[in-house]
Amino acid sequence: MTRAAVLGAGAWGTTFAAVLADAGTEVTLWGRDAEVAEQINTERRNERFLPGMDLPEGIRATDDARSALAGADIVAVALPAQRVRGIIADWADAVPADAVVASLMKGIEVGTHARMSDVLREVWGLPAERTLVVSGPNLAREIAVKQPTATVVAGTDSSAAEMLATATASNYFRPYTNPDVVGVELCGAFKNVIAVGVGVTDGMGFGHNTTATVITRGLAEITRLGVALGAHPDTFSGLAGMGDLIATCASPLSRNHTLGAHIGRGLNLVDAIERTGGTAEGVQTSLSIQELAREHGVDVPICDAVVDMLHHEQPLSEVLTSLLSRPRKAELS
Amino acid sequence: MTRAAVLGAGAWGTTFAAVLADAGTEVTLWGRDAEVAEQINTERRNERFLPGMDLPEGIRATDDARSALAGADIVAVALPAQRVRGIIADWADAVPADAVVASLMKGIEVGTHARMSDVLREVWGLPAERTLVVSGPNLAREIAVKQPTATVVAGTDSSAAEMLATATASNYFRPYTNPDVVGVELCGAFKNVIAVGVGVTDGMGFGHNTTATVITRGLAEITRLGVALGAHPDTFSGLAGMGDLIATCASPLSRNHTLGAHIGRGLNLVDAIERTGGTAEGVQTSLSIQELAREHGVDVPICDAVVDMLHHEQPLSEVLTSLLSRPRKAELS
Repeated sequence: MTRAAVLGAGAWGTTFAAVLADAGTEVTLWGRDAEVAEQINTERRNERFLPGMDLPEGIRATDDARSALAGADIVAVALPAQRVRGIIADWADAVPADAVVASLMKGIEVGTHARMSDVLREVWGLPAERTLVVSGPNLAREIAVKQPTATVVAGTDSSAAEMLATATASNYFRPYTNPDVVGVELCGAFKNVIAVGVGVTDGMGFGHNTTATVITRGLAEITRLGVALGAHPDTFSGLAGMGDLIATCASPLSRNHTLGAHIGRGLNLVDAIERTGGTAEGVQTSLSIQELAREHGVDVPICDAVVDMLHHEQPLSEVLTSLLSRPRKAELS
Repeated sequence: MTRAAVLGAGAWGTTFAAVLADAGTEVTLWGRDAEVAEQINTERRNERFLPGMDLPEGIRATDDARSALAGADIVAVALPAQRVRGIIADWADAVPADAVVASLMKGIEVGTHARMSDVLREVWGLPAERTLVVSGPNLAREIAVKQPTATVVAGTDSSAAEMLATATASNYFRPYTNPDVVGVELCGAFKNVIAVGVGVTDGMGFGHNTTATVITRGLAEITRLGVALGAHPDTFSGLAGMGDLIATCASPLSRNHTLGAHIGRGLNLVDAIERTGGTAEGVQTSLSIQELAREHGVDVPICDAVVDMLHHEQPLSEVLTSLLSRPRKAELS
């Protein structure tokens, strides 16, 4: 029987543990909070991060990471993007030598511009072929109630990707494999920035035409940067690209969208973060993406607008006017 | 000064007339209903098709098509897709010889499988270079209140497309030109079918992950068919493809989405049409698209599912199970 360790008992880590359990995989979930682990073991609930949701029997929870990692064939990591490096630093020797390691995280590290799978590889000294990324239109609360969902398992080694796909596949969770780790991972990170932008226009009272335009132009800028980084262009029109972007931008459950809406209604960043609660990864990732784009000479006007509104307190109307007054041109010619 | 005639005083025709007027173009709007025309001229309102919206001063309305067409540099046609051929049949000689003719319609004719610009060309004997298509994320009621929107003006002759773009561009309406008439027009028609499908899953109570998956896989099947018909692949990730699809699927204002939701809640087609009111173009177009796809050997599983649910009264759960039980595979390999 395949054994999995999930590190991080937030909404997505807990839900992913449930996905593994429902697919017949033996799973141990690590969370730093002993009370959360205790409640999962005794009540099959995680009221702090996934309130109201019943969890399957098969999940064992612990606050001892080393015991979770012991004997795992699969290690899935769902921790805050900007803090994961520090949290996992001491566990390199506890990761089983043949384990496949999957990032469930969506962000780009500030300063290093590292993708999350790069952080895992660096800190734990993993070979690329054992490092995977899971990303797709995967709002945790919907998966937790077993609504049908597809996702992408990205890995350079197709047998490792297929192994994780098999360990998670069920009648409500459909994983598709994809060798393009760079593209899938960039999509997951960048879409949070676009979702903040969509949230801002929603908060300002604009409608579906505007939302659709920002999402469409947003995917175009994700694709431009991804291709410059060596990704496969088809990844961006797939589930991890367009699919995840649409789900995140449509959902009031997304923290990035919610934070953007607070900004759009006139709150400053500090107040918007407080009102949103939890980590909106797009806030920090917008800075990393902007720097990455400049390094590679790629034009990312929506990301630039989000940085201006969030971090430079530029008035929304000014940012919008400047976006809309870009010269009109041919879409294709 | 550029003069335009808009044929069809429904929500979109009336709104497009307002867009032209706001861009400084002289515009005459034809509607078959004399009372609608009268109300537009006297009250600057079209309460029947665009209730509650104030129209700009510059629109003159008439129920006499020949007088609307006389002297027009631009003729824009917004009539029901399955009936336009009959309605416009007698006016060929009234269309000015040098006028640029734009289809604002989104459908594929049942029986002939003709795109709407083909119908205009055939019936009026127009050269391809004077025939344009306007399509994009353009929910009429949002444009009518001047929310910022982008659109695509497609035409094989870039100067004709640029002329219409200039005649419609304003501080809230941004037209982008694109030479790919086939792709832009197919997107506009096919997205209504996908919107019905999304409406069905919404009506059945599924959430944003499912919506995003249907939209993403839907665009993949639109793209496959489009490329088989000779369209440019980049059109599909643009405003007329992804943009329009997202706006239509997100909006409760879309009749196609609304009709699908009624079906998803268990109504049969006749009742769903009655409850929706107005023409949901996706109902008939699903049949034309399915036939077109079979002719070209293209796989369109979501369109097939919509046809099965709407026209063959196949139980929703069966259709869904069959969609979800397709073999799981690599997204890219």
